[in-house]
Amino acid sequence: MQLTKKDLLGIEELDTREIELILDTADSFKEVSERTIKKVPTLRGRTIINFFHEPSTRTRLSFEIAAKRMSADAVNFSTSGSSFSKGETLLDTVKNLEAMQADVIVMRHSAPGASHFIARNLDAAVVNAGDGAHEHPTQALLDMLTIRQVRGKIKGLTVSIVGDITYSRVARSNIFGLKKMGARVIIVAPPTLIPRQINEMGVEVFHHVEDVIPLSDVIMTLRVQKERQGKVLIPSFREYSNLFCLNPRRMEKAKKDVVVMHPGPINRGVEIDPAVADGAHSVILSQVSNGVAVRMAILFLLAGRAGMTRQNAGK
Amino acid sequence: MQLTKKDLLGIEELDTREIELILDTADSFKEVSERTIKKVPTLRGRTIINFFHEPSTRTRLSFEIAAKRMSADAVNFSTSGSSFSKGETLLDTVKNLEAMQADVIVMRHSAPGASHFIARNLDAAVVNAGDGAHEHPTQALLDMLTIRQVRGKIKGLTVSIVGDITYSRVARSNIFGLKKMGARVIIVAPPTLIPRQINEMGVEVFHHVEDVIPLSDVIMTLRVQKERQGKVLIPSFREYSNLFCLNPRRMEKAKKDVVVMHPGPINRGVEIDPAVADGAHSVILSQVSNGVAVRMAILFLLAGRAGMTRQNAGK
Amino acid sequence: MQLTKKDLLGIEELDTREIELILDTADSFKEVSERTIKKVPTLRGRTIINFFHEPSTRTRLSFEIAAKRMSADAVNFSTSGSSFSKGETLLDTVKNLEAMQADVIVMRHSAPGASHFIARNLDAAVVNAGDGAHEHPTQALLDMLTIRQVRGKIKGLTVSIVGDITYSRVARSNIFGLKKMGARVIIVAPPTLIPRQINEMGVEVFHHVEDVIPLSDVIMTLRVQKERQGKVLIPSFREYSNLFCLNPRRMEKAKKDVVVMHPGPINRGVEIDPAVADGAHSVILSQVSNGVAVRMAILFLLAGRAGMTRQNAGK
Repeated sequence: MQLTKKDLLGIEELDTREIELILDTADSFKEVSERTIKKVPTLRGRTIINFFHEPSTRTRLSFEIAAKRMSADAVNFSTSGSSFSKGETLLDTVKNLEAMQADVIVMRHSAPGASHFIARNLDAAVVNAGDGAHEHPTQALLDMLTIRQVRGKIKGLTVSIVGDITYSRVARSNIFGLKKMGARVIIVAPPTLIPRQINEMGVEVFHHVEDVIPLSDVIMTLRVQKERQGKVLIPSFREYSNLFCLNPRRMEKAKKDVVVMHPGPINRGVEIDPAVADGAHSVILSQVSNGVAVRMAILFLLAGRAGMTRQNAGK
Repeated sequence: MQLTKKDLLGIEELDTREIELILDTADSFKEVSERTIKKVPTLRGRTIINFFHEPSTRTRLSFEIAAKRMSADAVNFSTSGSSFSKGETLLDTVKNLEAMQADVIVMRHSAPGASHFIARNLDAAVVNAGDGAHEHPTQALLDMLTIRQVRGKIKGLTVSIVGDITYSRVARSNIFGLKKMGARVIIVAPPTLIPRQINEMGVEVFHHVEDVIPLSDVIMTLRVQKERQGKVLIPSFREYSNLFCLNPRRMEKAKKDVVVMHPGPINRGVEIDPAVADGAHSVILSQVSNGVAVRMAILFLLAGRAGMTRQNAGK
Repeated sequence: MQLTKKDLLGIEELDTREIELILDTADSFKEVSERTIKKVPTLRGRTIINFFHEPSTRTRLSFEIAAKRMSADAVNFSTSGSSFSKGETLLDTVKNLEAMQADVIVMRHSAPGASHFIARNLDAAVVNAGDGAHEHPTQALLDMLTIRQVRGKIKGLTVSIVGDITYSRVARSNIFGLKKMGARVIIVAPPTLIPRQINEMGVEVFHHVEDVIPLSDVIMTLRVQKERQGKVLIPSFREYSNLFCLNPRRMEKAKKDVVVMHPGPINRGVEIDPAVADGAHSVILSQVSNGVAVRMAILFLLAGRAGMTRQNAGK
């Protein structure tokens, strides 16, 4: 089996079999990064361009390492201060990258839908590495991979997502994915951080984290910001922490085998207490390791396909 | 045949046979980027340093991709905020790069003549990737390669260059190259954007784009800026567009097989109308693809030579 | 023999045999960079992350080139403007890098002891590429390698270090190393640039460079800054130059075979006169070449070890 889609734009567009294909492929690549010689020739001679329109390090590094471990040529560019931003349209920019025979363009952009827009206009494969508050599909895939690894399945689990749901592409992508894979999804946040259209997403909404902890097989904490674009989202970190921080006292009510996650970067003591972040239930660093494996899988599934398409097109 | 020069500094210094050698070599490398596995071992173990003293993305990416497709080790650095700028002279900086056994130093710098200066003082090969308003030889080479591909020749063609001639290294390098290759070169611009010493360059000067379009086999539009170093160059984009924009109405008077070019980044609707930029006569994206091929050729011709020189020097 | 330490944090922690092992290994790698094909497969499939928390180009380039010449996957990130800096702790940042299966983390940080702190908390190898005014061990190693190459030994030589001793990690690392290797070390600086605890370091203190030149086998000039963190260190470059600049007149009193060094970047005419920097006694560019060799040696000694440890841990 292989992906029929040219791009990875969001979890919303994937069906269950596609998600499983990606997770199974990631599982098979995970072992590569555990070797002393972390290198396979799979994508030799493919060109992967990491095009980051917003500051990011973790995700860019993860994609770059994934590409290099598969022997692809990885090239980075960020647009702060670049000539690309001087009046050139986004589409012209990426058409240029495609004309340099990029096989895959990994793009982070502040505008929701930006990667969908460029994917429609390019033959090259496009991977959405985060588009505004819309989707961050590789993050949700690595989260699902991690859950599947530690719990053996996703179906039937209760997963609670705690924090800034409205502005979180991580939350959105995970809600889409976890629902598709058969999990019960609970969100927990102050009312200011819950989007209005939440009911359409098939999740249950709670406002008190204490009510949710005993029910959860997985607790996914999200990074919180005090402000966004000049709009105050929470009165203070201290108040947020008082109400929502996953701390040892609250964790006493959790199931014995609960799994604790965070996509990073962590505000220690705000979303999650250091004792919990570093505790026995935490799989936060496994998420990071799985990020490389998921990105290797995505690049493999898309760049392999891209190569074949071009080859066929040439005939 | 091989290049006898150690460096590629400008088109002004090249003779016809050298230009043809570079274009022929680029033609032979173009096919590499059209494969699924875009990789040849030609420059394995050579070190190419992209040293960009001015912001650039397109050119840097093109050189980096060219180097990697030839299996060279490509290393980037830009000097904004770097320790190199803290009082160290440019010559000391590049002497350092050479001492790290760089085979080729690709340099962009705001000062005209900067790459000539360093080339005289280094054994390493130097490629001028743009020196102020002076020259941008790889851009002119990729433009000539593109013209030769679509028209089969350069000799005898009428090429019109429209826009900011005074401040354009692209215009200067193209004028040198196209004249050497036997084209008739016309420039079209408002008087403020035409340099005084233009008569020495062997071109014909027009002020109305309408007069030029019917004569042209190739129309090369250039990026326009409103201001440069505080000096107003054109009253407004709107007025420039009214007088010079290559739009469908003006194109009605063009030859049937006219070729439309732009070095990018494009100000759509200013220098060129979107319908023309994306139209049947446009080869703008071929220019970008040819950019990689030309840079592969240059790195091959110079880094091969550099290696041989050093080897001989060691004997 | 191999390094028993997991990390390279400072010269203070190394014994004579370890320093000799590193210098001998560097000597054996130096030849790789002198070939046309500067590439060995030694570290294929190892991941080296250059994590620079302070601006640097020379050191980062040197490590990146060293890694690539050994076929390692080298990945750079600097934290200015990165998401890593948004409230995430340094330890969380590097734990993330380790979770991506980095074999070696090369770190520059403004805080003295930063690399010691992270090394204690990671299984990955850590290389200190400069931690505040504390240590810069690879610089001292490349300096010692250079001295050993031109003079055949270090033991018994008189090495004078001229300039900003207080704020110089280069000076500190060299003092530790040169003393261990049996050199006589003299420091020469205005009283404001000599640290109070200097007597504990086993060096002799002079205030007039003229007194020191006739005694020296090696004169190591250091970069001087006028201010640091708002504190005036020297009244003016002119006055510093009058008193300390290594110029031809002063060099007349030097030994015939004196060796002149500078770690760069040079303020020409301040610490050292151009005629001396470029003169027959200067080995400044050899220092730069040796920097690549020393970093190849360090990466080899640590990443080889890292691989073995992980392999064993997996059993």
